Amino acid sequence: MANRANLSRRAAQLHSETLVSALMARALGQPNLVSLAVGFVDRQTLPVEATRRALERIWADADLARAALQYGTTPGHRPLCEVLLDRMLSADRRAAAEMNVSVDDLVLMPGSNQLLFLLGDILLDPGDIVICAAPTYYVYLGALRNLGARAIGIESDAQGMIPEAIEGQLARLRAAGELDRVKAIYLTSYFDNPRAVTIPADRRARLVEIAKRWSQAHPLYLIEDAAYRELRYGGEDLPSLRSFDAEGDTVIYAGTFSKSYSPGIRVGWAVLPAALRGPVLAEKGNVDFGSPHFNQVLMAEVVRSGLFDRHVRELRDQYGAKTDAILAAAEEYLRPLGVDWVRPGGGLYLWVTLPEGLDAGLDGPLFDRAVSEGVLYVPGQYCYPPEGRPAARNTLRLSFGVASPERLRQGVAALGRAVRQAG
Amino acid sequence: MANRANLSRRAAQLHSETLVSALMARALGQPNLVSLAVGFVDRQTLPVEATRRALERIWADADLARAALQYGTTPGHRPLCEVLLDRMLSADRRAAAEMNVSVDDLVLMPGSNQLLFLLGDILLDPGDIVICAAPTYYVYLGALRNLGARAIGIESDAQGMIPEAIEGQLARLRAAGELDRVKAIYLTSYFDNPRAVTIPADRRARLVEIAKRWSQAHPLYLIEDAAYRELRYGGEDLPSLRSFDAEGDTVIYAGTFSKSYSPGIRVGWAVLPAALRGPVLAEKGNVDFGSPHFNQVLMAEVVRSGLFDRHVRELRDQYGAKTDAILAAAEEYLRPLGVDWVRPGGGLYLWVTLPEGLDAGLDGPLFDRAVSEGVLYVPGQYCYPPEGRPAARNTLRLSFGVASPERLRQGVAALGRAVRQAG
Repeated sequence: MANRANLSRRAAQLHSETLVSALMARALGQPNLVSLAVGFVDRQTLPVEATRRALERIWADADLARAALQYGTTPGHRPLCEVLLDRMLSADRRAAAEMNVSVDDLVLMPGSNQLLFLLGDILLDPGDIVICAAPTYYVYLGALRNLGARAIGIESDAQGMIPEAIEGQLARLRAAGELDRVKAIYLTSYFDNPRAVTIPADRRARLVEIAKRWSQAHPLYLIEDAAYRELRYGGEDLPSLRSFDAEGDTVIYAGTFSKSYSPGIRVGWAVLPAALRGPVLAEKGNVDFGSPHFNQVLMAEVVRSGLFDRHVRELRDQYGAKTDAILAAAEEYLRPLGVDWVRPGGGLYLWVTLPEGLDAGLDGPLFDRAVSEGVLYVPGQYCYPPEGRPAARNTLRLSFGVASPERLRQGVAALGRAVRQAG
Repeated sequence: MANRANLSRRAAQLHSETLVSALMARALGQPNLVSLAVGFVDRQTLPVEATRRALERIWADADLARAALQYGTTPGHRPLCEVLLDRMLSADRRAAAEMNVSVDDLVLMPGSNQLLFLLGDILLDPGDIVICAAPTYYVYLGALRNLGARAIGIESDAQGMIPEAIEGQLARLRAAGELDRVKAIYLTSYFDNPRAVTIPADRRARLVEIAKRWSQAHPLYLIEDAAYRELRYGGEDLPSLRSFDAEGDTVIYAGTFSKSYSPGIRVGWAVLPAALRGPVLAEKGNVDFGSPHFNQVLMAEVVRSGLFDRHVRELRDQYGAKTDAILAAAEEYLRPLGVDWVRPGGGLYLWVTLPEGLDAGLDGPLFDRAVSEGVLYVPGQYCYPPEGRPAARNTLRLSFGVASPERLRQGVAALGRAVRQAG
């Protein structure tokens, strides 16, 4: 960015064009395009009736309504923190004492995205390193790049990041004298973005153990992004990585209602190690003095009244049906072309691997053909950190949250036609 | 802050204890204390009924309700931007073309505080300078300190910052070779915090002219914090500083509904020079991808329906009565002690000057006596930037937003007793 505007050094590193806006610009004017690019939730599933009922309950209590309209505190509405902690402990089948956690360790955010931003500010100097899965959540890669931080990608299999690969990378960084620049390992622990894989329990324990063992001169934090935890379309919930951190000094847990309830209300939360609470709150005090109190009071009512759990059950049915639809379409239109994918047990994404050598990138032979045929996707290469495991250019991400089953089918069929032309 | 937590350099500069929390800690356990410290709004004035009605209107339109619960965009809900721009132009009696402004120059924020944070990030490197009034909004001084930026205080009179004093300071900085470090002038243009003074029209024009004339090698921005514009208890509205910036390249206008409607809903907005829009949006994309859409849709409905204007009229009556109450009490209990104050034409603050030599600070003879007598205030010295015009230690700020007229009277009487004891 040019500096005629007299900007700071920090601003000079900022990239204002997002990947999604670049993709959309390429697809401009394409009629009837099925966008499987953006990881939004389905507008039709948004909880209009549940929210109306929760608002009615709040408005029935003039004192509560008035409190909701007043400033809150920087950590956020305590009754919501309490109910979130209870739910985490109950899902993890742990007592607070076993996890060295209390309601004071929770901080409410406008979406878990703010937590990632605040952690960037308080943990990362330019040149500092975050270990990520390869592929990983690409928006976070952009945030790290904006801070001048390094993201190193780790080989991942059907169970998430491979522990031996993490240790190998840490050993190489130690040998290079760079271990003290490694501040955190970032991962999405449930139905991750972009691959929808979930880390099984034994590997969770192992990852926490690795982070603790490599926390020698200074802590190596483990950022557990649990954004998709509730979006499970089969099987059982698994205990969080946080549940394996008995001291509570290693795992930073990030939760959000943006995927499981409403991104327009935007309430997320962090469960923080004690050493990070002060700095996170101090920086959050700078950013916003606390997120909107009204939204926090609303979500407390939504959860307490059982409206949230009911909504999540409905969501699971709806997204489960979409998962079935996109998988059936992939079987029909993509399997015959030698295309493969990770079968999602939850979340919003289908991670697709094309035949070897077929580049899904913006400048490859597939992207514009796919747009012409009527489908927009995210090229997989953008989900790979710039260092570490090299990007697989024959990959792409399809989001099945927004489109209807019928549109999903159309989109996958269009992708099949494009692959056939490009192959 | 200790660095056992492996923090960034930025985090090491953070101060986690806020002034208000320090004041409250000193007052802990004091029964029946009248707190005139915090600049909150009166809970009883919060617009419960208006908000209920606006929510009903939104919920009557299922499409709009659903849209409110979905992600918005990073700049924010366009219909709200449009109505905010219309209102500003109409209040300023200007056409958009005369001010080189369009709806694209607006960005919605969760409170105007976030704008100050984003501007800090994109404009200020450590050591960079912001020119402020002395005294000024102390929370902003904390944010500047956290960034390692320098705040220089300018002599201010009953009409705000003195233009000649600004030019004198700029000339001294130029002579010292530091002019290129001066990034902005910050001021509260209506009923400022802490002195409740309002800059008259001719001085507004002069300040904009100064900022433009000193924008030579690079822009010197003028940050116009208009937080209290609607809280006017007499007289006429004045045109904004932005209205004197025909090119729209100098003034950054910050508005908010936190004081005039509800701080719990937390919607603010910026009108930005074109050169800053890209960097602000890029950094805002990092912070939160856009503020909660639900709150923006709600405020658009509140304004469009006329509920906002009606609420502001009620607020003016209520706060006007409080202004009368605190002024009457000051006349009765403080005037005989040689105490003086600035008569507020709006806003939430009474700026009090004690007799020469009486230190209102935490370690002076007054503070603990005042707490014992039953009143909490903000010592004026915290409102002075660390450089420039030295702090007047015999000053204090009383906030009259929260307490009832009767409690205001009690609080001022308690302050009178404390002054008598300490004097």
